[in-house]
Amino acid sequence: MSSAPVRLSAASLRTTEQPINYFIQQALENPRLISLAAGLVDPLSLPADELAEATAHVLGRSDRARAALQYGTTHGYPPLRDKLLAHVAALDGVTPADLSLMADDVVLTTGSQQLLYLVSELLFDPGDIIITEAPSYFVYQSALNTFGVQTRTVPMDEDGMDTAALAALLARMERDGELSRLKLIYVCDYFQNPTGRTLSLPRRRHLLELAERYSKHQRIFILEDAAYRELRYDGVDVPSVKSLDRDNRHVLLAMTFSKPCAPGLKTGYGVLPRELIAPLLHLKGNHDFGSCNLTQHVLDRLLETGAYARHVEQLRHVYREKRDELLTALDAEFGLARQVGVRWTHPEGGLYVWLMFPPEMRTGPDSPLMRAALREGVLYVPGRFCYVGGNVPDHEARLSFGVVPREQIREAVRRLARAGHESSLRRCKASAPC
Amino acid sequence: MSSAPVRLSAASLRTTEQPINYFIQQALENPRLISLAAGLVDPLSLPADELAEATAHVLGRSDRARAALQYGTTHGYPPLRDKLLAHVAALDGVTPADLSLMADDVVLTTGSQQLLYLVSELLFDPGDIIITEAPSYFVYQSALNTFGVQTRTVPMDEDGMDTAALAALLARMERDGELSRLKLIYVCDYFQNPTGRTLSLPRRRHLLELAERYSKHQRIFILEDAAYRELRYDGVDVPSVKSLDRDNRHVLLAMTFSKPCAPGLKTGYGVLPRELIAPLLHLKGNHDFGSCNLTQHVLDRLLETGAYARHVEQLRHVYREKRDELLTALDAEFGLARQVGVRWTHPEGGLYVWLMFPPEMRTGPDSPLMRAALREGVLYVPGRFCYVGGNVPDHEARLSFGVVPREQIREAVRRLARAGHESSLRRCKASAPC
Repeated sequence: MSSAPVRLSAASLRTTEQPINYFIQQALENPRLISLAAGLVDPLSLPADELAEATAHVLGRSDRARAALQYGTTHGYPPLRDKLLAHVAALDGVTPADLSLMADDVVLTTGSQQLLYLVSELLFDPGDIIITEAPSYFVYQSALNTFGVQTRTVPMDEDGMDTAALAALLARMERDGELSRLKLIYVCDYFQNPTGRTLSLPRRRHLLELAERYSKHQRIFILEDAAYRELRYDGVDVPSVKSLDRDNRHVLLAMTFSKPCAPGLKTGYGVLPRELIAPLLHLKGNHDFGSCNLTQHVLDRLLETGAYARHVEQLRHVYREKRDELLTALDAEFGLARQVGVRWTHPEGGLYVWLMFPPEMRTGPDSPLMRAALREGVLYVPGRFCYVGGNVPDHEARLSFGVVPREQIREAVRRLARAGHESSLRRCKASAPC
Repeated sequence: MSSAPVRLSAASLRTTEQPINYFIQQALENPRLISLAAGLVDPLSLPADELAEATAHVLGRSDRARAALQYGTTHGYPPLRDKLLAHVAALDGVTPADLSLMADDVVLTTGSQQLLYLVSELLFDPGDIIITEAPSYFVYQSALNTFGVQTRTVPMDEDGMDTAALAALLARMERDGELSRLKLIYVCDYFQNPTGRTLSLPRRRHLLELAERYSKHQRIFILEDAAYRELRYDGVDVPSVKSLDRDNRHVLLAMTFSKPCAPGLKTGYGVLPRELIAPLLHLKGNHDFGSCNLTQHVLDRLLETGAYARHVEQLRHVYREKRDELLTALDAEFGLARQVGVRWTHPEGGLYVWLMFPPEMRTGPDSPLMRAALREGVLYVPGRFCYVGGNVPDHEARLSFGVVPREQIREAVRRLARAGHESSLRRCKASAPC
């Protein structure tokens, strides 16, 4: 029997377990936990009937069935790419031609996560630099670690990434000779995961202008993760950064069916500068030479009949009510705590509210608050998971209203408030005066 | 408008278009072509009704629908992993315990191609070495190029990879100090793509024994690509190399639903040494945090009802007839050519026959034979695509009986024979005496 050690690649050694797995485990082990942590979607509104109808349609006639069950292309089902191009343009009230786009600029992926991965593989060598919002989407950060990418961060406020701070960062990077390693700026610019914030229109313009201006050594791309765009519950829609990039040069738009339709279909899509399409497809050819073909045909049918649009409309009602319930519960349970500096965001869409305690109230996995929350039976994502580097804020929390039933939201927030009270009391006892 | 150049990663620059795309293009542009090139499956026997029934079952009850349409896990749907473990063990007539296996050693992937990719990402740094059969599966070779892996090859005969030659190669690599960079031996050991050959049992034992013996610096793994195993039409089944690896230490088994069921589901699976599971799932978490969940639930139902087993049984009949038709046509059209050294394999399963001309009859994309074949209206895969390095054989062809209708097989071979005759004549005229 061989006892030779396993030797993994450098990329694999740079890759660690997703921190979120800890929470999945907690939820599995303690079924009475109410999870405000999970990034799952509302289970009750999943479009099972619509998908059953569409699948029956696709599989019910032999020519359609054969096309859906045979190998597809690496690029994705052409009629679906046509529809998605029209869909994306319609969201911005423009035509594809206005944005110099055609259907070949659209690529289907295994969720938008695969697009994020492929874009990273396409652009990054170890030591290259990405700029992200702080806080940012933590699952993507894990992929960036695998590629050995250095992350520089830009603070956010209620209007999203602070592009004045971005401008200062870029100037500093130029001075320090780092600009040649900067390949990508990543923004989740609609109802951001984790904060729920949306990038304002003036900042969208500024962001694109900065990417153009600093593309001195090589093209600096913007990866616009618009996964939540279609889930707007109030306020006025804001154009995508993609729609401002009229020559299709700088912006890679990442979209998905996971949030507005069903994650189990695992179908996302990207709209990319034309020069990136062929090299990205060459990489994707290595990965899988095409994502699940059947679900692409089913989604094509869903778009064709209008069932998709109707479903998204219904979903907005469902999530609007859940968001309102969460904000109402936060007002009720944490209203007084505002006096000691507790705050939270009021997102106009998406699935997340960002809860900010005073700096001394730690929220991390080993914090008194987390221990109290687990005792009380509620789970949140510690804000520190959404930052990179050593000295990160540890007094924030992501609350998701995606998967939790509406009628449990109030109770979840009540438990969280009790946990906050408990851990504050303990802190006071340990270090009086409070 | 920015004119800064796009700068891609080193991995991307190592990645080129799949040569097969040329043939896809040819087939699209010339619809009267009969393609013996495409690696697609038989369209008429795709299990549309069975999949429609299974999907209706999954989506027809709300609890099942919610489970299938929500996010799944990175690892894959647990009941399906249970069934696949039992399935794989049953193919070898053993229990999972006999092989030190449990369901957590099974991972679901986006086709078996994604497993091949993930295993490569897991193990390889640029400059590392893989050993493959010559010829070998060309799509995987493209991924190996991306990772900057060096490929060493071992010749084959009718019993698959020549393990005596492998032993000599390993001894040479040890002498040359290269053994520390050898991570993986890749074999497609059932009805190989492209040759149709199957690795004999004594060689399976020898292969494993060599991997164990030479695991001196680090574990040398065997990637056993058994995509075609279930498509056996005659002869006696041979145990997997995996089943000989009783301590689950060396062999990574790659399986798929693409060939025995439907490629459009894009669902494959692997059975891996336990130590590799966690690091592989961390990588897969970056890629997509789980392959298509709906199709996993549908396939689970297909296995549960026995519809999968019944379908594979029917499929064997369909392909047996198509294989027989192809072999009969080759006998009829190329029988005389045996006298000048034309030969072909007689696979007991799978989708491919390997046609070998005398060395002076080139088959490459710019060869007289290929040009004549395109004029005649038939397409094959040039054998040279299945080799790596500079001075590769250029007188072989992969013929697939997967997608071509049975009634067109004879005509396809007739066209190929005419093309062979034409190009031989031209060669004779150009360089008499012939």
